[in-house]
Amino acid sequence: MTFTIQNVLIATDDDYITTDVQIVDGKIAAIAPNLDVVGTTIDGKHKLLLPGFVNAHTHSSEMWQRGGISVFPLELWLAELYDSAPVDIEKVYLSALGTAVETLLSGGTSVVDHLVLIPGEELETIASAVRAYKEVGIRAFIAPLIQDESLTAGLPSGESTQTHEPFFRSTSDTLELVEEAVRRFHRPDEGISILVAPTGIQLCTDALFEGCIELSDRYNLCRHSHLLETKAQEKLAQEKYGCTAVTHLQRIGFLSDRTSLAHCVWLNDADITILAETQSTVVHNPLSNLRLGSGIAPILKYRQAGVNVTFGCDGASSNDSQDLLEAIKIGSILHNVTDFDYRYWISPRQAIEMASLGAAKGLNLADKLGSIGIGKQADLVLYDLTNLSLIPRTDPIALLVLGRPTNVVDSAWVNGKQIIANGQVTTINVDKLREELFNLSEWVTKRPSETVAQFELHYRTVMGLSE
Amino acid sequence: MTFTIQNVLIATDDDYITTDVQIVDGKIAAIAPNLDVVGTTIDGKHKLLLPGFVNAHTHSSEMWQRGGISVFPLELWLAELYDSAPVDIEKVYLSALGTAVETLLSGGTSVVDHLVLIPGEELETIASAVRAYKEVGIRAFIAPLIQDESLTAGLPSGESTQTHEPFFRSTSDTLELVEEAVRRFHRPDEGISILVAPTGIQLCTDALFEGCIELSDRYNLCRHSHLLETKAQEKLAQEKYGCTAVTHLQRIGFLSDRTSLAHCVWLNDADITILAETQSTVVHNPLSNLRLGSGIAPILKYRQAGVNVTFGCDGASSNDSQDLLEAIKIGSILHNVTDFDYRYWISPRQAIEMASLGAAKGLNLADKLGSIGIGKQADLVLYDLTNLSLIPRTDPIALLVLGRPTNVVDSAWVNGKQIIANGQVTTINVDKLREELFNLSEWVTKRPSETVAQFELHYRTVMGLSE
Repeated sequence: MTFTIQNVLIATDDDYITTDVQIVDGKIAAIAPNLDVVGTTIDGKHKLLLPGFVNAHTHSSEMWQRGGISVFPLELWLAELYDSAPVDIEKVYLSALGTAVETLLSGGTSVVDHLVLIPGEELETIASAVRAYKEVGIRAFIAPLIQDESLTAGLPSGESTQTHEPFFRSTSDTLELVEEAVRRFHRPDEGISILVAPTGIQLCTDALFEGCIELSDRYNLCRHSHLLETKAQEKLAQEKYGCTAVTHLQRIGFLSDRTSLAHCVWLNDADITILAETQSTVVHNPLSNLRLGSGIAPILKYRQAGVNVTFGCDGASSNDSQDLLEAIKIGSILHNVTDFDYRYWISPRQAIEMASLGAAKGLNLADKLGSIGIGKQADLVLYDLTNLSLIPRTDPIALLVLGRPTNVVDSAWVNGKQIIANGQVTTINVDKLREELFNLSEWVTKRPSETVAQFELHYRTVMGLSE
Repeated sequence: MTFTIQNVLIATDDDYITTDVQIVDGKIAAIAPNLDVVGTTIDGKHKLLLPGFVNAHTHSSEMWQRGGISVFPLELWLAELYDSAPVDIEKVYLSALGTAVETLLSGGTSVVDHLVLIPGEELETIASAVRAYKEVGIRAFIAPLIQDESLTAGLPSGESTQTHEPFFRSTSDTLELVEEAVRRFHRPDEGISILVAPTGIQLCTDALFEGCIELSDRYNLCRHSHLLETKAQEKLAQEKYGCTAVTHLQRIGFLSDRTSLAHCVWLNDADITILAETQSTVVHNPLSNLRLGSGIAPILKYRQAGVNVTFGCDGASSNDSQDLLEAIKIGSILHNVTDFDYRYWISPRQAIEMASLGAAKGLNLADKLGSIGIGKQADLVLYDLTNLSLIPRTDPIALLVLGRPTNVVDSAWVNGKQIIANGQVTTINVDKLREELFNLSEWVTKRPSETVAQFELHYRTVMGLSE
């Protein structure tokens, strides 16, 4: 927890300096050249030190289905996903390990896991993920994914009259479950936080949102939700509320400076103003938005309106990776095609700040995380600048963001504890993990989905697609 | 050149089989289970065999500037690029090696290098790239980048009257240079082909295009060019020809079934019909198009119109990587946001075919390359399906295309010669290359560009951007 990184490159406002960085008891204690060595010495030569990034929206257990779900829009993709979701607590543990490892190896030191709960074993699911994240040592924000309406309720009705099965668990039981999870697992000082996390307006009643707000206020919890990922959800919000989803969420009080909202693709200008005013955070998941054809989130507009934005990989079935550097790259350059004026484009340095400090803000931790400054927690990543994918030498941060870095993370620390050294995860046996993931899965190449068959005609009709 | 891969997974029309593949004298001789072993035995267990992909558009020497050019639209980016382009023959050699290695390690076995020529040392530049590609053993299509107009001529004039310096080399000298390159270096049977490659309508006269057509016909050479990468080029074509660039190129006879055209972002429906009728090939460079804000090429329209499409990384200053699997992934999923009807979206299997057979068609080699079939050249890649980035097991090709595979290429062969074994390039010393690239470069973090300063006001005016 106490160490000194010598002769390392760090970014200043618009340049770089070579310096030493002292970490004492998990916090950054000094930044200056030629510091006295305290604790272990780390050689920073030809290395770049950055604050750890946050994989600010994912669903870890989707790792089991990555590569396995058809190229579909969200609503049909989700139907297929439900048909093959893992229902085994041990698998949840392994995919949380896998998600943590891929996040760490691509510059992340924290993960926000919007965790799919196994019905009837909800607390066991959370316990399993907690165990994995503690073992790896990544900082984890576990957002148990809750809903109180059935999957079919997530589609707009259009002209038709739809009836839906009631959800198998009551709203109050669901809220009780979250509260129990908070009591058992919410230990921010130990690197595990619980978030209240209704899946989104498409599958949640106001009662569920309001219960979450109450828990959030009572236990000082951050709030997390999907928001307007697809055009279908935009239609649904109008049917359900007679106004936009953002207007409705503001009215019921869900939006706040500790609320982070995944996707935010289908917002209008008034909605954007509301996000800015409420200081809500947008979690941009560019790869998932492309893979599912959801659309391009208006990220440049968010930034111009003063909305805080950060990045997530989203679950590994809609991406199908947990490479945070990939999400940062695509989440930056994608928007250059949405505005001809390049003065608004996201620079590599801005992207890095969004991925670190932007995420910390959304998790109400900007005073503790997200930048390299005296007194901040040592969630740090050291990049090897001699790696083939980062040479020839030019601008280190531009190479990291605009290139395709592979095997570049030399070291990573969470709260001052070293999790990666010499490019290898030190806390768990990754080869063993790899074997288990391999052995517990099988090649699946055909995937007829009953749920998709039930949904597809209605989906095409309501979305105005030909039969 | 003769070997047998045993128990390897290969793709059938809509599934996979485990089989043996026999390669004799550089060609695929048999595909069936339990074949007699000829030559070396390769263990294919838990591995996927695919045809090698083609990095169908790049500029190798841009590797020296990757991460080094501002986040700008093409025209300003190009101005900055020109200011710092390498002018050292040895650097051309090293960046060709680097481009080849990154291409090979991401599934490519061929590269189309639209090679920037050092003024006054044009043939030496080509010789240097040829030497590098022969040493590595990648199949190379060298397309010497030629023009006969000055950089400023590449911008539309708008309302103003612009005059441009004449280009330093005459059209006839330029054509003579290409012909000499063909005589010296065009050896398709040895894996090196020369293409005629005017940079594009923005910087080339009709005389240059027509000279290239003549050389192409006389020496049986493929044709390559940039086409309508930016909106500025679309405007310029109207100023220059009074019609679209595609109409003009068709009239002068440049389009053909051995013509490949990089970018093709700003085409209208009539242009697309012309590309289909002339059997031209579109080389899609999705990452460069995003990075430079050029736009999203209408790839789904091309496919519906029957236009052949393949993928390129583009030069490493506009991407800034040569990871072909990244280009294939983004070049597939990007288009899901351009059409709500998911039935037109590119499936992972279609993407693989575009990257292999699609490229072979554009290079007039579909009979020899681009698929795994009896009698085809053995340009093959073997992927390790036990790699962390490709597990848990689901659908191998979907994992490869939709995931973020790293370190997954186990082996690669070009014309039956093994270039990668156990994940390592066997033909050159990559660590030495890495050292040289590192030592011959330096961190560059400030980059005021004189040329940009000259261009920017005119660019903003003509593109309708505020001052």
